[in-house]
Amino acid sequence: MDPPRTAAALVLGNELLTGKVQDKNLTALAEMLFEIGIELRRAVFCPDEEEMIGAELAVLSRDHDWVFTSGGVGPTHDDVTMAAVGRTFSLPLERSPEIEDLLREFFGERLEEHQLRMAELPRGAVLVKSPRVRWPTVRVQNVFILPGQPEIFRSKLAILAEHLGGATPFVSREVHTSSDEARIAPLLAEVSHQHPAVSIGSYPQWGDVAARVVVSVNGRDPAAVDRAVEALHAALGAGSILD
Amino acid sequence: MDPPRTAAALVLGNELLTGKVQDKNLTALAEMLFEIGIELRRAVFCPDEEEMIGAELAVLSRDHDWVFTSGGVGPTHDDVTMAAVGRTFSLPLERSPEIEDLLREFFGERLEEHQLRMAELPRGAVLVKSPRVRWPTVRVQNVFILPGQPEIFRSKLAILAEHLGGATPFVSREVHTSSDEARIAPLLAEVSHQHPAVSIGSYPQWGDVAARVVVSVNGRDPAAVDRAVEALHAALGAGSILD
Repeated sequence: MDPPRTAAALVLGNELLTGKVQDKNLTALAEMLFEIGIELRRAVFCPDEEEMIGAELAVLSRDHDWVFTSGGVGPTHDDVTMAAVGRTFSLPLERSPEIEDLLREFFGERLEEHQLRMAELPRGAVLVKSPRVRWPTVRVQNVFILPGQPEIFRSKLAILAEHLGGATPFVSREVHTSSDEARIAPLLAEVSHQHPAVSIGSYPQWGDVAARVVVSVNGRDPAAVDRAVEALHAALGAGSILD
Repeated sequence: MDPPRTAAALVLGNELLTGKVQDKNLTALAEMLFEIGIELRRAVFCPDEEEMIGAELAVLSRDHDWVFTSGGVGPTHDDVTMAAVGRTFSLPLERSPEIEDLLREFFGERLEEHQLRMAELPRGAVLVKSPRVRWPTVRVQNVFILPGQPEIFRSKLAILAEHLGGATPFVSREVHTSSDEARIAPLLAEVSHQHPAVSIGSYPQWGDVAARVVVSVNGRDPAAVDRAVEALHAALGAGSILD
């Protein structure tokens, strides 16, 4: 099986780090990547500061196959993602004629000169297009630059899933048990040890009296996932397994 | 004014990076820190892997006054936070008699030997206690180690807010405007430049036809925040300001 590709997320916005707004984009990205078999290894939230974003990006881009940024691409002074990406890869910002045309078409006569700031992209930026979405997604080297607005972020993810898909997807199964997490810990450790091709997680359920623990089994080989689930059934005992 | 103290968050859990579960703890922590005047500068999400957690913690602990971890403190094989903290600070794990007593009291005769793993703490760990919460919060050097379960996480935050409070809190005001974000961008940049003691953020509102943009003004000097809000009112013009 092809080794899993890896990804990181860089989520920008002072509003997230001051607790004013609850981020939703990380979960959406994580779900999409899981479905197409790309392993999300790391996510970093950082303020709208060009230098800090640039430093984070340099590390994330070096250590992962793909990086996805969320936020900081609008027209205001706190939108510094493009500048930070340019800084990371030592690429000057240049006006994209294609984005300029889209802006002129969209805003018409209301377009003001400073709004063209949104057409300034790092040199060599690639535009990932789809007939289903008006605005292309910008990619610079291995970094996809997405807007923070959740609905737009999601619509771009759908395009990127098609664009990046084709690898072996992850599969996931769950075992629900009425046993106590502390009680089954040694069994889980043993099954986990004997099934290195899968990742086994244990999630105690609060306020759900029937299933006290949900055990999740994730992997890219469906047969290996099935074998681990069978081993869990055997180890936990039929009496404690819930449907 | 005392300089703001800084903080970082380290949020652990494969379930968050596979999109199975939406994190709620980062926002809760961010809100609490904002209220007591501590600046959350960075948050990192990483998988349940001891070595990776240890490496992240070393950097976060070095660069910030406080670090808060979420998750990975239960009894199962994927709960590796304590081991990672021990690794970061080169501290062996030792059984805490106080946590052992609490476990024995809580579980009674149902306690099994391996559950005492939850009493293994890095040497020198400090227990932050409150009469309002049964389980103390563990601190090792400048790292507070919190469980991932959201209700428990929140109950511990309330204790930590009292424990860490006393600095100058942040204050926040909002200006709602019917103007277009792209149109007001130069004004915001100008006001932001002239009021360096505050942080001005611009958040376009989607699906809300009245307030097209919410401009937030955050700072620790209430008078400086008020001055910036007045400057925004003057710059945007009374006609475009909404209540």
